[in-house]
Amino acid sequence: MAKQAKVRYGVIGAGRIGRIHVENLCYRIPDAEVVVVCDVAVDETRRWAAALGIDNVVADPKDVFDNSDVDAVVICSPTDLHADHMIAAAQAGKDIFCEKPIAIELQRTKEALQAVEDAGVLLQLGFNRRFDHNFRHIRQLVQQGTLGEVHIVNITSRDPAPPPIEYVKVSGGIFMDMAIHDFDMARYMVGSEVVEVYASASVMIDPEIGEAGDYDTAVTILKFADGATAVIDNSRQAVYGYDQRVEVFGSKGRAAAENDTATNVSVATENAVTSDKPLYFFLERYMASFANELEDFTAAVQQRSQPPVGGVDGLQSLLIAMAATKSARENRPVPLKEVAGE
Amino acid sequence: MAKQAKVRYGVIGAGRIGRIHVENLCYRIPDAEVVVVCDVAVDETRRWAAALGIDNVVADPKDVFDNSDVDAVVICSPTDLHADHMIAAAQAGKDIFCEKPIAIELQRTKEALQAVEDAGVLLQLGFNRRFDHNFRHIRQLVQQGTLGEVHIVNITSRDPAPPPIEYVKVSGGIFMDMAIHDFDMARYMVGSEVVEVYASASVMIDPEIGEAGDYDTAVTILKFADGATAVIDNSRQAVYGYDQRVEVFGSKGRAAAENDTATNVSVATENAVTSDKPLYFFLERYMASFANELEDFTAAVQQRSQPPVGGVDGLQSLLIAMAATKSARENRPVPLKEVAGE
Amino acid sequence: MAKQAKVRYGVIGAGRIGRIHVENLCYRIPDAEVVVVCDVAVDETRRWAAALGIDNVVADPKDVFDNSDVDAVVICSPTDLHADHMIAAAQAGKDIFCEKPIAIELQRTKEALQAVEDAGVLLQLGFNRRFDHNFRHIRQLVQQGTLGEVHIVNITSRDPAPPPIEYVKVSGGIFMDMAIHDFDMARYMVGSEVVEVYASASVMIDPEIGEAGDYDTAVTILKFADGATAVIDNSRQAVYGYDQRVEVFGSKGRAAAENDTATNVSVATENAVTSDKPLYFFLERYMASFANELEDFTAAVQQRSQPPVGGVDGLQSLLIAMAATKSARENRPVPLKEVAGE
Amino acid sequence: MAKQAKVRYGVIGAGRIGRIHVENLCYRIPDAEVVVVCDVAVDETRRWAAALGIDNVVADPKDVFDNSDVDAVVICSPTDLHADHMIAAAQAGKDIFCEKPIAIELQRTKEALQAVEDAGVLLQLGFNRRFDHNFRHIRQLVQQGTLGEVHIVNITSRDPAPPPIEYVKVSGGIFMDMAIHDFDMARYMVGSEVVEVYASASVMIDPEIGEAGDYDTAVTILKFADGATAVIDNSRQAVYGYDQRVEVFGSKGRAAAENDTATNVSVATENAVTSDKPLYFFLERYMASFANELEDFTAAVQQRSQPPVGGVDGLQSLLIAMAATKSARENRPVPLKEVAGE
Repeated sequence: MAKQAKVRYGVIGAGRIGRIHVENLCYRIPDAEVVVVCDVAVDETRRWAAALGIDNVVADPKDVFDNSDVDAVVICSPTDLHADHMIAAAQAGKDIFCEKPIAIELQRTKEALQAVEDAGVLLQLGFNRRFDHNFRHIRQLVQQGTLGEVHIVNITSRDPAPPPIEYVKVSGGIFMDMAIHDFDMARYMVGSEVVEVYASASVMIDPEIGEAGDYDTAVTILKFADGATAVIDNSRQAVYGYDQRVEVFGSKGRAAAENDTATNVSVATENAVTSDKPLYFFLERYMASFANELEDFTAAVQQRSQPPVGGVDGLQSLLIAMAATKSARENRPVPLKEVAGE
Repeated sequence: MAKQAKVRYGVIGAGRIGRIHVENLCYRIPDAEVVVVCDVAVDETRRWAAALGIDNVVADPKDVFDNSDVDAVVICSPTDLHADHMIAAAQAGKDIFCEKPIAIELQRTKEALQAVEDAGVLLQLGFNRRFDHNFRHIRQLVQQGTLGEVHIVNITSRDPAPPPIEYVKVSGGIFMDMAIHDFDMARYMVGSEVVEVYASASVMIDPEIGEAGDYDTAVTILKFADGATAVIDNSRQAVYGYDQRVEVFGSKGRAAAENDTATNVSVATENAVTSDKPLYFFLERYMASFANELEDFTAAVQQRSQPPVGGVDGLQSLLIAMAATKSARENRPVPLKEVAGE
Repeated sequence: MAKQAKVRYGVIGAGRIGRIHVENLCYRIPDAEVVVVCDVAVDETRRWAAALGIDNVVADPKDVFDNSDVDAVVICSPTDLHADHMIAAAQAGKDIFCEKPIAIELQRTKEALQAVEDAGVLLQLGFNRRFDHNFRHIRQLVQQGTLGEVHIVNITSRDPAPPPIEYVKVSGGIFMDMAIHDFDMARYMVGSEVVEVYASASVMIDPEIGEAGDYDTAVTILKFADGATAVIDNSRQAVYGYDQRVEVFGSKGRAAAENDTATNVSVATENAVTSDKPLYFFLERYMASFANELEDFTAAVQQRSQPPVGGVDGLQSLLIAMAATKSARENRPVPLKEVAGE
Repeated sequence: MAKQAKVRYGVIGAGRIGRIHVENLCYRIPDAEVVVVCDVAVDETRRWAAALGIDNVVADPKDVFDNSDVDAVVICSPTDLHADHMIAAAQAGKDIFCEKPIAIELQRTKEALQAVEDAGVLLQLGFNRRFDHNFRHIRQLVQQGTLGEVHIVNITSRDPAPPPIEYVKVSGGIFMDMAIHDFDMARYMVGSEVVEVYASASVMIDPEIGEAGDYDTAVTILKFADGATAVIDNSRQAVYGYDQRVEVFGSKGRAAAENDTATNVSVATENAVTSDKPLYFFLERYMASFANELEDFTAAVQQRSQPPVGGVDGLQSLLIAMAATKSARENRPVPLKEVAGE
């Protein structure tokens, strides 16, 4: 096969995650180049982009979609604009890498996915944790049959600190905003679809979160079509850092990933034996996964093949989050069909 | 305080666990002595007891209860006789150490506890895992406040292999027979009472277990009065050994116990880095805990103080197991009040 | 083979280690019984022995050697009496378990071994670490060929705190008193004989130790006849506890033992991730090994077979300690032949 | 302070390590740029460099030294040309980052260092392991006093497989070629100078290595001026991968680094509990350290400050390697003064 041309990217949104994607595209993915970056804070973005050798910075996403040098877009805009930008990008014939979620409303999500389908463009969603070295290795063990049939998946996913209360209010809630990553992880590990959700949630950390109608602590059980069960525990505040662990237990064994740490040095003194705390922040913990996901997307674009995380993954995770929210509120197991409107 | 006299024991039942208790009383607890052992297999028991210097072996439990040299009894008879033996022992004024469960029927359990109360004797139940070195240490961290307020307890409890199907049929089911230990562990860790149970159970290992009306795989969520949530995952078959782990997550941190192993040797070869599997069998894993629990009971008898695991612990665990069974069958959260008949 | 009669023991010396041996013989080794204990502190020993059901306590070792009910003796007297007691026991036809070292003089050691040989009694020396669960497992891996040909052995052996200076003065020095265990461990692991020793020693912890003519920190290289090299590092003071680790590196891989701990609980808080320090004291660390060694000796006596640690092991370790002492003082490699007087 | 201009680099030698340095300078060090690369394989180098946006590729090092756009050079030429290139670069007024060793002859090393001193340029040597995340953390603990006074340093350094025999013949031997990194590591950890060396070396892996006059297995003891002792064990073949571990033991505690692995996933099956082998190859293991060292050098050039690893470090490591070689051959401790010609 002939060497593919580089994929030329336009990036919408140069906030924290947008900048990471741009830097990865520039520095870690030889087959990618960034031709334009769009952000409302044009001046600040321009200064930052110049250091990366990117001259073209625009304020209006339309200038990205209309740019014929752009093969693919990376959408890192605020969540409530994801669907608009996906639809516009699809209509412009651009392949799309979009941060999750597509939208927090089911209808809007379906519209965006329809636009992608109609346009026949490629779509990958930013469920970056699938590309984490530890979790990917466990998934490979499942796929190779090393663990046998999956019986139980245990996921612990705890943030180091709650987001600002203003963010909590518009976040869609702990299931939509935080656990949705874990729902996708469970689906990734099991390789089957969720049929029912039971969630038990509470306010243990900050009463203000409760007053905002949300929870800060949750345990969710997912039942899969193939009989597997996943258990996810979430907390908005693990004082020791970002706690992200996965265990898969199957008929032939178990595999478990621990947290990553900055060093593996163990220190013994008169007082204690200590070792590193988990990496504190998701950007440190998942840094390599962000590069990996765009590397895979870039390859998919070059080869016109299906990207590894697609629209169905976004849709299913959304449905699970909706069912979990309903389950927590009504204290009963909620079939996915119920929220899917089937 | 004057040095207490030794506690003189009569032991009912010299099966696997009964023999362990006798050997611990003889060899590891200086303040205890065994004056009589009762078992229907008198000849075989006599041979075994002789080697321990125990001459008095009887076939009829009455000969234990009527023995005025006996201060306390250890009840290791078959489960369905526990309550009978407890009541007879209580009426004879003997302090009682009884293997769990008291009974698998609520009414009979209450009768046995009433007999204990009426007689004013001391009662300790054989929830030995509370006396395990790892789990006891975590409980101490909770009590000392090191972990802050408990938010989530994660318990993994998996047997190395399912029991014979004939046993399964009379066991009372996975929640009553197996998970009941974990329900007590969760109560021990949290230090509050369970108010509601949701259990999701399935048959993943052996269809015969399903045909017997039982499950072999289960995930249970316990909600506590103080707001804490416990998650327990059970399997009848972990091919790599007896998997017994506990994590407590609280407002100030987390503590987690790994499985015990025969050695801590790590071996690296061209093929792999390997380490010991978990101890395969509950007798190896919990050996020290069996001695510890009788040591504490012996001290309680000497000092006429409340033993560390009492009747309420047996009753609550039974109620949780009943609620879990009902929850799994009806697929809905079941309040403890509902099964308690309140 | 007919079931062997119990081995009847006389124990010389009821200090710290003597009492451990007696308790193990009474409680953990069904095929052993203690018929007489000898200690100059007769009254105190009598009180302690009574609780174990031992009535016969004597002050004069002669009363042990002359006791025809005694099959074997356990010698736990002060080091400078070991050889006297060994010789007297051998001449009385008793099998002998003796704490190490036999003597700190080569000539006296040889005399004692000669007496044993002349009498045809069995002899086992108290190199208990060979019976430790971790180290024994590594040795098994070597014997099974899992690690291939042994190239390098790394032994770390550090005490939690230096002994009293008065003890240091009569101890024979760090190599004779402390490293001698590690010299035996290296021989045990490699399964070949040492031909040359180089030791580098210094005074890093307490100048008084230096003034007493001894060292508190040492690194020793042992060269074996089969080409293997062992490296041992010793310190009289590891503030974090008793540090006892062994690694064997061979042509097919490596095996390494970590320190044992009281629990395997890991605790993560805002400040740190902590775990248990090594067990602080040799009695905790090696408790099981003391029972294991006497169990094996008891079996050897019953079967009249060669015990697992014999006179040659005592002799070789002594020679290595002598060579190490000389090497440290003269700062040159010392062939074992040189100190053996060959 | 005003923002410094980027440091403009010329790179001599585009072999394996040269390319890594160039890629790091291009992609990971914003304050660096590569203006020219020199390699005899001009065509191949040009193709590779073009993908990085580097147009200027030359065959003659002179074209680098004479290039007035070059601020600093990175010397990755064959070892026997290091000194020539250092001297030429110094005379051209370029700051120098040079792979180790400067030369394997003492005289040539001194000449090169003299040229650097005469020219007043900055020099950093490629002892990259000092920049490894684990080892740097241990060094910080030493510097902060957490470990107290350093008593013993244990370094294990084993290659996954021996180099080709042709390479062995010209390598200068195991101490000069391989252990020299560990000698620098020991100096880095202790922060004092070595005064005497004893090395015990053997041929355990491949007789051809012995026939070439070299060893494949070695244990070296370094005595430091401040009383500390370092022990280094080296092997040319650890079948399980690249084994690189360091422990520092001091008056207040110990710190130890384990090997890095690709994932931290643990897998338990019926057969075994397995985890990842150490990263197999030095490029994987130390990848980040290569970027870190050039980042620090770049900052030193910008600020005209002393780089973190200087000429004295190259000289001392060379002297230790010379002393170790002599010690192994003559089987006696060799004072550093002896080889330094003082």
